[in-house]
Amino acid sequence: MKALVYHGPGSKSLEDCPRPALVDGGDAIVRILHTTICGTDLHILKGDVPTCAPGRILGHEGVGIVESVGAAVTTFKPGDHVLISCITSCGRCDYCRRGMYSHCATGGWILGNAIDGTQAEYVRIPHADTSLYPVPPGADEEALVMLSDILPTGFECGVLNGRVEPGGSVAIVGAGPIGLAALLTAQFYSPAMIAMIDLDPNRLAFAERFGATHLIDSNLQDPAAALMEATGGRGADTVIEAVGVPATFELCQRLVAPGGVIANVGVHGHKADIHLETLWSHNIAITTRLVDTVTTPMLLRTVTAGKLQPARLITHRFGLDAIVEAYDTFGRASETSALKVLITA
Amino acid sequence: MKALVYHGPGSKSLEDCPRPALVDGGDAIVRILHTTICGTDLHILKGDVPTCAPGRILGHEGVGIVESVGAAVTTFKPGDHVLISCITSCGRCDYCRRGMYSHCATGGWILGNAIDGTQAEYVRIPHADTSLYPVPPGADEEALVMLSDILPTGFECGVLNGRVEPGGSVAIVGAGPIGLAALLTAQFYSPAMIAMIDLDPNRLAFAERFGATHLIDSNLQDPAAALMEATGGRGADTVIEAVGVPATFELCQRLVAPGGVIANVGVHGHKADIHLETLWSHNIAITTRLVDTVTTPMLLRTVTAGKLQPARLITHRFGLDAIVEAYDTFGRASETSALKVLITA
Amino acid sequence: MKALVYHGPGSKSLEDCPRPALVDGGDAIVRILHTTICGTDLHILKGDVPTCAPGRILGHEGVGIVESVGAAVTTFKPGDHVLISCITSCGRCDYCRRGMYSHCATGGWILGNAIDGTQAEYVRIPHADTSLYPVPPGADEEALVMLSDILPTGFECGVLNGRVEPGGSVAIVGAGPIGLAALLTAQFYSPAMIAMIDLDPNRLAFAERFGATHLIDSNLQDPAAALMEATGGRGADTVIEAVGVPATFELCQRLVAPGGVIANVGVHGHKADIHLETLWSHNIAITTRLVDTVTTPMLLRTVTAGKLQPARLITHRFGLDAIVEAYDTFGRASETSALKVLITA
Amino acid sequence: MKALVYHGPGSKSLEDCPRPALVDGGDAIVRILHTTICGTDLHILKGDVPTCAPGRILGHEGVGIVESVGAAVTTFKPGDHVLISCITSCGRCDYCRRGMYSHCATGGWILGNAIDGTQAEYVRIPHADTSLYPVPPGADEEALVMLSDILPTGFECGVLNGRVEPGGSVAIVGAGPIGLAALLTAQFYSPAMIAMIDLDPNRLAFAERFGATHLIDSNLQDPAAALMEATGGRGADTVIEAVGVPATFELCQRLVAPGGVIANVGVHGHKADIHLETLWSHNIAITTRLVDTVTTPMLLRTVTAGKLQPARLITHRFGLDAIVEAYDTFGRASETSALKVLITA
Repeated sequence: MKALVYHGPGSKSLEDCPRPALVDGGDAIVRILHTTICGTDLHILKGDVPTCAPGRILGHEGVGIVESVGAAVTTFKPGDHVLISCITSCGRCDYCRRGMYSHCATGGWILGNAIDGTQAEYVRIPHADTSLYPVPPGADEEALVMLSDILPTGFECGVLNGRVEPGGSVAIVGAGPIGLAALLTAQFYSPAMIAMIDLDPNRLAFAERFGATHLIDSNLQDPAAALMEATGGRGADTVIEAVGVPATFELCQRLVAPGGVIANVGVHGHKADIHLETLWSHNIAITTRLVDTVTTPMLLRTVTAGKLQPARLITHRFGLDAIVEAYDTFGRASETSALKVLITA
Repeated sequence: MKALVYHGPGSKSLEDCPRPALVDGGDAIVRILHTTICGTDLHILKGDVPTCAPGRILGHEGVGIVESVGAAVTTFKPGDHVLISCITSCGRCDYCRRGMYSHCATGGWILGNAIDGTQAEYVRIPHADTSLYPVPPGADEEALVMLSDILPTGFECGVLNGRVEPGGSVAIVGAGPIGLAALLTAQFYSPAMIAMIDLDPNRLAFAERFGATHLIDSNLQDPAAALMEATGGRGADTVIEAVGVPATFELCQRLVAPGGVIANVGVHGHKADIHLETLWSHNIAITTRLVDTVTTPMLLRTVTAGKLQPARLITHRFGLDAIVEAYDTFGRASETSALKVLITA
Repeated sequence: MKALVYHGPGSKSLEDCPRPALVDGGDAIVRILHTTICGTDLHILKGDVPTCAPGRILGHEGVGIVESVGAAVTTFKPGDHVLISCITSCGRCDYCRRGMYSHCATGGWILGNAIDGTQAEYVRIPHADTSLYPVPPGADEEALVMLSDILPTGFECGVLNGRVEPGGSVAIVGAGPIGLAALLTAQFYSPAMIAMIDLDPNRLAFAERFGATHLIDSNLQDPAAALMEATGGRGADTVIEAVGVPATFELCQRLVAPGGVIANVGVHGHKADIHLETLWSHNIAITTRLVDTVTTPMLLRTVTAGKLQPARLITHRFGLDAIVEAYDTFGRASETSALKVLITA
Repeated sequence: MKALVYHGPGSKSLEDCPRPALVDGGDAIVRILHTTICGTDLHILKGDVPTCAPGRILGHEGVGIVESVGAAVTTFKPGDHVLISCITSCGRCDYCRRGMYSHCATGGWILGNAIDGTQAEYVRIPHADTSLYPVPPGADEEALVMLSDILPTGFECGVLNGRVEPGGSVAIVGAGPIGLAALLTAQFYSPAMIAMIDLDPNRLAFAERFGATHLIDSNLQDPAAALMEATGGRGADTVIEAVGVPATFELCQRLVAPGGVIANVGVHGHKADIHLETLWSHNIAITTRLVDTVTTPMLLRTVTAGKLQPARLITHRFGLDAIVEAYDTFGRASETSALKVLITA
């Protein structure tokens, strides 16, 4: 089968690989219909993810059709259309029983990282009963690929951790795909204000279309000053960090209102400063989270009900044959205006 | 009347001052029976608290008797014995209505800071209806002084923010009075383990007497290694920072279990490092809080019910005449083994 | 001044009364701009509310202009435009400090009940600082009358107590003004389904316009069977009782899903059956609540942000001179299709 | 093997039965070390549980040693000492993923009900990975039998649903084993007051020994009057119904404070009255729950830490040979003063 293989920093290729086979009783083999590329895949290609060894098939998002299942699988059977979660969850370890699937003792984020992933014609999914979700009848299967990772990540790490609520104020730092996913799902809770902060006018334009009430271009104005003006000097109840560098994390500390939350979503490669000399008395919380995908059933229901349109995040489409081109388009997002690129096998 | 007056960094004296008078309709004048000294008073004397101007009478803790009340006071009358909260709360601004008394628009921590305080024979308490609490019949009034600040601080900022729960694990960094207050009130929730980390064997001995299940002397062992060994490599669900320097805040980040909370209680004078390159995916929260004293009624009930013995924190007693000596004893705690010094007017 | 006076069961009249005067330091006198009639006013007129004595001026909703304030009032001054809460709250008793304003020791629902109310040219508001809210600049003051009672009631007692959440299912029993207020505010949380159950096709038509996804006419079908069919046999996560009679409360017990909530909003005059022989093992909650109006600031922000259009509830308009006719129109709602009648002084 | 078999209402016998065999890949066969008898077993024998057919081996509590496991079991192996949960949980259905194991699509309370149970030498446990718990090293295995059902039931249905908190007030109606289990675990949260209400002086004496602060004998005084006197007329924040008849449920409605919770634990066979004509405005909640045993790991930690002594509930001990006598002793608890009878195989 064809698959996109990582060969060490800076190196990847589409090549022929053996089709995966069932290993454990809980496994399923899924034929991929659609997959996509995540910012994390670019991190791997920079060499930033040591758990991902050369030779690995990348990809942790996708929708497909169950091809075969192990003896212990009870929920799915061949022919079922399924959404693949980016997080593999055994359903039985202490962390899974507490809803922290990201820390599953034998799972977590392993697809396209510690084991072969979804940018291929077929993928092996361990713990299939608790790591796959049935595609609802009549669903737009392309759109559902956005529920493998980016929408639960924006929702769980940004919106839920950030405790967005009706009439509240939200500031999102970073209008990339993940910041926009937070923007879309923050609206589930009807905040009065959602300010989007970025340097790229094109991405701010997406934010406006997706429901941001205030756009703050950091190239044109001091974002903290702009937000304070917009909030009567209070700051935002919820601040979502969706970039992952020290400067944006520091900015968030200037944006948060007393009693508010800084919900970190960004993947950080470096330590940052925390201004406890100010914040110690501000009654704030800072949260971090690797997505647990514990809200996937909830998100599927919002999609079915028309409360969320995941397809809005898809800007480009490619066949699996053209996945190297898709990586290029996604990697040069500032030029191509790419958000998410859909890849069809 | 006699009062302890701050005269700028390093300088204070007990002197004669005019008795305070009612200013606003919501004021009460309280005759002080007992007060105490807080670590924050030492911060003021180092010059670290710019809101506190020379000439200020210090002190924000105490129990006393209402001497007179303004026309708008409805809850208290002369002769009532009252507990003075360290936080002044108007009860009507947005923050007060949300239970964030620490951020009251016309209150917060102002006693012995922006206005004259309780280390005196008399004190003026603004917003008396919502900043004083009736002393329960038969209560030990000396012990209740511990409910002005230190016990609600340990409880709200450490225990509640830290989400201590039955069977959980708690690590407290810093066995000073505030860490010990957190230790006492953490036991409301029956955690399975409370590890106390400090450098001072004497304070660790207090911690043992007060209910710590594990004592970790940072001079003798690496505290993170010791805690990991005690928790099977997981870390603590709740980590309470009760020191207030960058090194201890960094230590807390090595102690916290995935899914856990670092509840900051310490008063910080400097920024610190936050290791987001590790923590971004650990599903943790870091909280800060200036005590709101919103739990004072709850704490009064636990004292009345015998679930909490505040008097255990009192190690020394002085008359108001000897308050300068009391400061000395409190300031040299490592030599004197002082926790809280009770001052009787 | 003109005012609508209750003279015992079945009897009321618009008459000349003395203008109210300041009594306590916390009072404000408000000149009424707009008021309305509540279902509870009809209950009073049936003689169902023994705390309301003959001679009482009715009404507990309204928007007006502060005419004068007592010495202890600090938040408002003459000329301020204010929203009057149906609940009077002192801000300092135990219940108020816990956010249960409905149980305020010296307040609660007293307006137009234990003291004279708002269906008049002027009204005296005790505890003005904590019972009035500033009208936001540029607000539609007629629409804001809906925030005195009906919208916070639907929201707090129905939606918040009912724990409505994104992707969830909601069933509302009773499409009167209060059920429709719950319907409008439930949408703050983006549930996947909101089924409205009523006998009146006209009210169901309002529900459809206001966002209900399923309409169930109890005259045409068994509502429990219809809801089970719509939810795949599970029932609704949130069931809101907005009628107040035993039969509808019993119906709610047939509608609720395991793990769900029955949030009672209706004012009941009789006991009802609770089917514990079934429900004991269904992991459900039943909640009751007299509105606390603790969410009034939040609701004001949603109105300002355009997330809520309170004016949609207003179907008829009258001058204060015609208030008796307004009562008639409101009382014959099944014929007049009245929801809320706006009365302008 | 020997087993206690149900033969229809009023009929049971200890007899020889075939040893259970593995059926599904997720099964384990457990050799029983200790089991006990539950009030629910008596309900079955009265014919009140139609899901339990004649021929069924009774019992849903126990500690044992894994004898063999199916191919899909990954957590346990032969020789492991295990605690058997009364609730069978698949870990993968919607309810299990939400922590509502009691409503597991293929589990729930099936042991000794829909499938053969633990009052035998061996038992088959479906979904073993998620329905068994490892016995901690050094644990008192007899005492742990109390963690199969009664302690999680008292804790989850009574204490957690009842939101017991430090300084709060608790009233427990019914001092049988389940009420006493609630009493023991309520103390995890340090309430100021726990009133136990019963008619049996012997059971009240147990309650006193187990930590109740107030004992109310319903034969000697009106329990509602007594509780109101003890709480200054407010009532209890948490009221736990641990009997299961209409009269006690009605009593609970007279005991609950505004803002409080009635947490139902009792198994009800009949509907009851709910006094909505009073309660509609009291801001209370009524909760029901079949135990989920989601807190079993937490409870195991509190036992290991010495915060809970489950053995206190054991009053009598029998061999499996004498189980019919054990039933007799347990069934005549008012004469024998039995709480829980431990049966050793």
